[in-house]
Amino acid sequence: MPFARRDVNASQQFQTSLSRTAADIEVVLDRLLGASALEDEQERPPRLLEAMRYASLEGGKRFRPFLVVECASLFDVPRDHSLLVGAALECIHCYSLVHDDLPAMDDDALRRGRPTVHKAFDEATAILVGDSLLTLAFDILGRPATHPDPAIRIELVLALARASGLGGMAGGQMLDLEAEGRFASSPPRHGLQEVRRLQSMKTGALLRFGCVAGAILGRANGPRRAALDRYGSLLGEAFQIADDLLDLEGDPELVGKATGKDAAAHKATFIAILGVEPARKRLAELVAEAEAALAPFGAGAEVLKTAARFVAERQG
Amino acid sequence: MPFARRDVNASQQFQTSLSRTAADIEVVLDRLLGASALEDEQERPPRLLEAMRYASLEGGKRFRPFLVVECASLFDVPRDHSLLVGAALECIHCYSLVHDDLPAMDDDALRRGRPTVHKAFDEATAILVGDSLLTLAFDILGRPATHPDPAIRIELVLALARASGLGGMAGGQMLDLEAEGRFASSPPRHGLQEVRRLQSMKTGALLRFGCVAGAILGRANGPRRAALDRYGSLLGEAFQIADDLLDLEGDPELVGKATGKDAAAHKATFIAILGVEPARKRLAELVAEAEAALAPFGAGAEVLKTAARFVAERQG
Repeated sequence: MPFARRDVNASQQFQTSLSRTAADIEVVLDRLLGASALEDEQERPPRLLEAMRYASLEGGKRFRPFLVVECASLFDVPRDHSLLVGAALECIHCYSLVHDDLPAMDDDALRRGRPTVHKAFDEATAILVGDSLLTLAFDILGRPATHPDPAIRIELVLALARASGLGGMAGGQMLDLEAEGRFASSPPRHGLQEVRRLQSMKTGALLRFGCVAGAILGRANGPRRAALDRYGSLLGEAFQIADDLLDLEGDPELVGKATGKDAAAHKATFIAILGVEPARKRLAELVAEAEAALAPFGAGAEVLKTAARFVAERQG
Repeated sequence: MPFARRDVNASQQFQTSLSRTAADIEVVLDRLLGASALEDEQERPPRLLEAMRYASLEGGKRFRPFLVVECASLFDVPRDHSLLVGAALECIHCYSLVHDDLPAMDDDALRRGRPTVHKAFDEATAILVGDSLLTLAFDILGRPATHPDPAIRIELVLALARASGLGGMAGGQMLDLEAEGRFASSPPRHGLQEVRRLQSMKTGALLRFGCVAGAILGRANGPRRAALDRYGSLLGEAFQIADDLLDLEGDPELVGKATGKDAAAHKATFIAILGVEPARKRLAELVAEAEAALAPFGAGAEVLKTAARFVAERQG
């Protein structure tokens, strides 16, 4: 569905906010990945640092940090804090891309139109880049600059660890490999409930963290935190269905990586279970539900509502 | 040098403490790696969980957790707290072994006398096991059960991230691969200063964290924290020289992995630079300095002094 006239302003606001956050995140990551060793560091090996920068700078729309910044702004959280939390989340996202691209995993040669890290460098370096970006995420959350209150910082640490570990993103990647029928010990599980759970772990957990992190930074509990939690979950499912549709129908130039791989690899996607049209219908429902979840915030959440529509309609 | 008679008691105390902590850590890790999903986890994929348990249970002397527990006991920290921090540190140690053993890294088939994780399972699972153990370490430090004060927990998060990231353990592994002359862009650096730095990052940083963590848990600042920091640094260097000697002269049965690999891989070891006898002499000096560093704790630190001698004399 194209934007109606009344949505034009919201759409412009959304694009402006997304671009501004992406530009700010670039600056923050560039500073975090500087050459100088910090306290308790001995040195930053130049090759590792260069590869970490390759893996994390000049990349992507920074949609996850955008979610942190936008959700935190509902509670008037200083932008410096939400950008650092967004940078930590982006480190986790980038590490997962580097490791997922490895030959033993999805074996991808291209990412965002450039050679993947193990192609541009080598496999050993790519493994260490992922490990180091993962670790850097928690380093960032540990710093007083991220939030003056240690209780807020440690709540973020725990939430990010849960979102990205064995019961979250990493576990979701395991289930995804199993669903491909990769292991003799694990027959493929391709039911709708299995796919939803797999995807909500692999993709949804980080998006949901981005939204909940805004509430944590804003010291929001109760209905407003629950609303962002629900919004994040719905957004995550929408994001994955849209991603599956892009893999099926998208232009590799715009998507920035090879398409048509899911079907070839017998991936456990929503489309494989539901079919294309029912998947499209489900996507529209999810966007409507995500917008509805933001009701407690009134007009303050217009940009986030637009974000949900953007997720469903993006071309790359 | 064999233990003198007056050391027999200290030696028994040390062995008892080491065994007791190892047994307790086994229980703690077994509980942490239970099948039930926690809050904010969706499910724990059985294959991933099984491989994480394979990588972390029934393994090793648990020397790093022992350091946390012993150093924390100097400040009367409750054992439940220091054991959880020890378990987090052991998760980092185990993740590093799993990733270092991968074919793209050191390509080891045996670890502690058993097939390495990528041999017992497969490479993709081994990558995810490492990622998930790394993440679990910060999950553990995030929990209120680890320490009731969020300020203490977040200080531990920051210190552990620094010890294990690009300026610590992971960076040290990068330097180690470079010192092998693995990359055309990086000529081998084999001077004594380079080897010391490399080893203090790769091996020393985690041992040092173990000691400093005890001080953090004990809210110790000033000279007593500095003393444990220094003890940890000296112990780390001693540990690595002893490891190099074991690789050169050790019995593979006792060591639990192939020996003689360092020379074959032209690894940057102390022995390669110094020669065997000067390395032995340096090891004895380090043990004496480590013992001296513990002076502020008087008789309370006998077990830690014995630990330094144990590190130098161990056979496997």
